[in-house]
Amino acid sequence: MQAGDNSIAKAQQAAAAQLGARARRDIRSGAWTAHTSGLAPGNVQGNLAILPAAVAGDFLRFCQRNPKPCPLLAVSEPGEFALPELGADIDIRSDVPRYRVWHGGQLVAEPTDIRELWRDDLVTFVLGCSFSFEQALIEAGIPLRHVECGSNVAMYRTNIPTRPAGRFSGPLVVSMRPMVAADAIRAVQVTSRLPQVHGAPVHIGDPALIGVNDIARPDFGDPVEIRPGELPVFWACGVTPQAVVMEAKVDFCITHAPGAMLVTDLLNHQLANN
Amino acid sequence: MQAGDNSIAKAQQAAAAQLGARARRDIRSGAWTAHTSGLAPGNVQGNLAILPAAVAGDFLRFCQRNPKPCPLLAVSEPGEFALPELGADIDIRSDVPRYRVWHGGQLVAEPTDIRELWRDDLVTFVLGCSFSFEQALIEAGIPLRHVECGSNVAMYRTNIPTRPAGRFSGPLVVSMRPMVAADAIRAVQVTSRLPQVHGAPVHIGDPALIGVNDIARPDFGDPVEIRPGELPVFWACGVTPQAVVMEAKVDFCITHAPGAMLVTDLLNHQLANN
Repeated sequence: MQAGDNSIAKAQQAAAAQLGARARRDIRSGAWTAHTSGLAPGNVQGNLAILPAAVAGDFLRFCQRNPKPCPLLAVSEPGEFALPELGADIDIRSDVPRYRVWHGGQLVAEPTDIRELWRDDLVTFVLGCSFSFEQALIEAGIPLRHVECGSNVAMYRTNIPTRPAGRFSGPLVVSMRPMVAADAIRAVQVTSRLPQVHGAPVHIGDPALIGVNDIARPDFGDPVEIRPGELPVFWACGVTPQAVVMEAKVDFCITHAPGAMLVTDLLNHQLANN
Repeated sequence: MQAGDNSIAKAQQAAAAQLGARARRDIRSGAWTAHTSGLAPGNVQGNLAILPAAVAGDFLRFCQRNPKPCPLLAVSEPGEFALPELGADIDIRSDVPRYRVWHGGQLVAEPTDIRELWRDDLVTFVLGCSFSFEQALIEAGIPLRHVECGSNVAMYRTNIPTRPAGRFSGPLVVSMRPMVAADAIRAVQVTSRLPQVHGAPVHIGDPALIGVNDIARPDFGDPVEIRPGELPVFWACGVTPQAVVMEAKVDFCITHAPGAMLVTDLLNHQLANN
C-alpha cells in the first residue's frame, strides 16, 4: 500500500501547508497579533533570532555546540528574508505577530513588522520549540499541568554551562514539567525521538543538583504545583539562546516576542526519528 | 557497502554461534558447573522455566500479558528439548549448568542434568534476562554499581500487580540500579530499544510509591549503596515469573538455578530495535 501511504502523507503535507500559509497571511495582514499557541495546531512553530552577519558565525557555532537548547530548523543566507524550507511564501520581516528589537542587550521596540529595519547583512535563525514536543506528550496521554492551568511553562537558569562560541556563553535555561515516574519514563521515550525540538530531558528529580534552589520561583514563566509522588522533569529550553544573545549585548538583534512564534508548514510528527 | 556489511554481520553471527556452542559443550560435559555470567560475553543468556503442558497454556498467556517481566525468547513444542531458534545444537535437558526442580512450589533437587526427569508433556520457556541490557548500559558508559561491587543486583517485591492468567498471578518483582539523573535518562533510551530483555524502566525515584518500604533490604539479591544525587531506577525483573510459578504451587516444574542461565547463539545487540 505504498502508493496509498504516499498519497495520505502528501495530503497531510498539503493541508499543513495551507494551514501554515493561512496563519502567516493573517499575521502578515495584521489580522492576527496574538500568541500563536493553538494556531495551526500540528504545525511546527519556531523561535526566532535575527543577527548581523558579523556575529552570526559565532551564534551558528553556539547552536552547533549546544543542540539541545538550540536545535536549528533553518538558517538564512545574509539579507535573505525567505525561508523556503519552512514554508513557500515565508517573509520573515512580516510573518511573526510581534517582534522584539534589541540594541546592546536592551529592548527598544516591539513592532509587528520589521520591513523598515531590514538590512542586507541580517541572518535569520529559526530554532525548534517545545510546543512540538508538548503536542507529542499530550498525544502520548501525558498530562501537562501548565497546559491544563493555562499558564506559561516554568523556566529556570541552571548551573549547567553551555559550550561557548565566540562572544556567546552562559548557563543552560531549562523548562520544568512535573509528572509521575511512569509518565517521566514515557516522556523520555517520546521526546528522545524529537531532537530538533530539544529532545530528551536533561535532568529528573532534585532541582538543587542543577543549581535550581527555589523551584517555586521560576526565573521565567509561571510557577507550577508539584504534587506528592511527582518528579520534576527538566528539558533544555529555547530561552537559553535568547538569554545568551542578550548577555552578549550585541549591537543589534531581533527576536520574536514571547509566545509569538513563526508558524511553519512542517508537521510536528515529521520531526520524529524512527 | 551492503555486501561488506552483510559479511561482517555474518562473521559476527558465526563467532557468536561458536562461542555459544563451546559454552554449552563445556556445560553439557560437566566441565562448567558455575554461574554463566561472563561466559560467551555478548551472547544473549536466557531465564528458564519448564512446565507440564497442562499449565503451560496459562503460563504462556501470563507471559503474553506481562511482557516487561516475562519477555519470551522461545517456547518449545511439548516434549521437544531442542530450541533451534536459540542455537543449532541446544538440548535443554543438559545445557544449563544447574537446574532447580520444584514439586508443589517446594525445591526438591538441584541437578546439573535433567535427562532422567524429562517427560513428553514438558514445555520449555526461555525468557530474556537483564544481562543483555546491562551489557548495553555498560557500553553506553553508564556505571552499574552492583557489577563494580561484584554483587547480585538488588531485587524487590512491589505493590504493582501483574495481569493474571489462569492460576498465575502475583506482584511484579523489580531490580534496582542507582544512577545519576543524566544516566537514568540515557538508560531509559538504551533499554527502551531492548523490549525482549525487560525494556524501559518501570519506575524512577521514591521506592515507597511502588510499595518498596525499605530499599536497604532487598527481597532477593544484595543491597547496594544509593549515593547523594542518585536516583533509584527500577526495571521489571525475571524473578517475577519464577515467584509466580512458585506461588501457584504447580505439581512439577524445572527452572535454572540463580545465575546459571542458558547461553544462546544470539547476540545482545541483535535484540535492539532501530
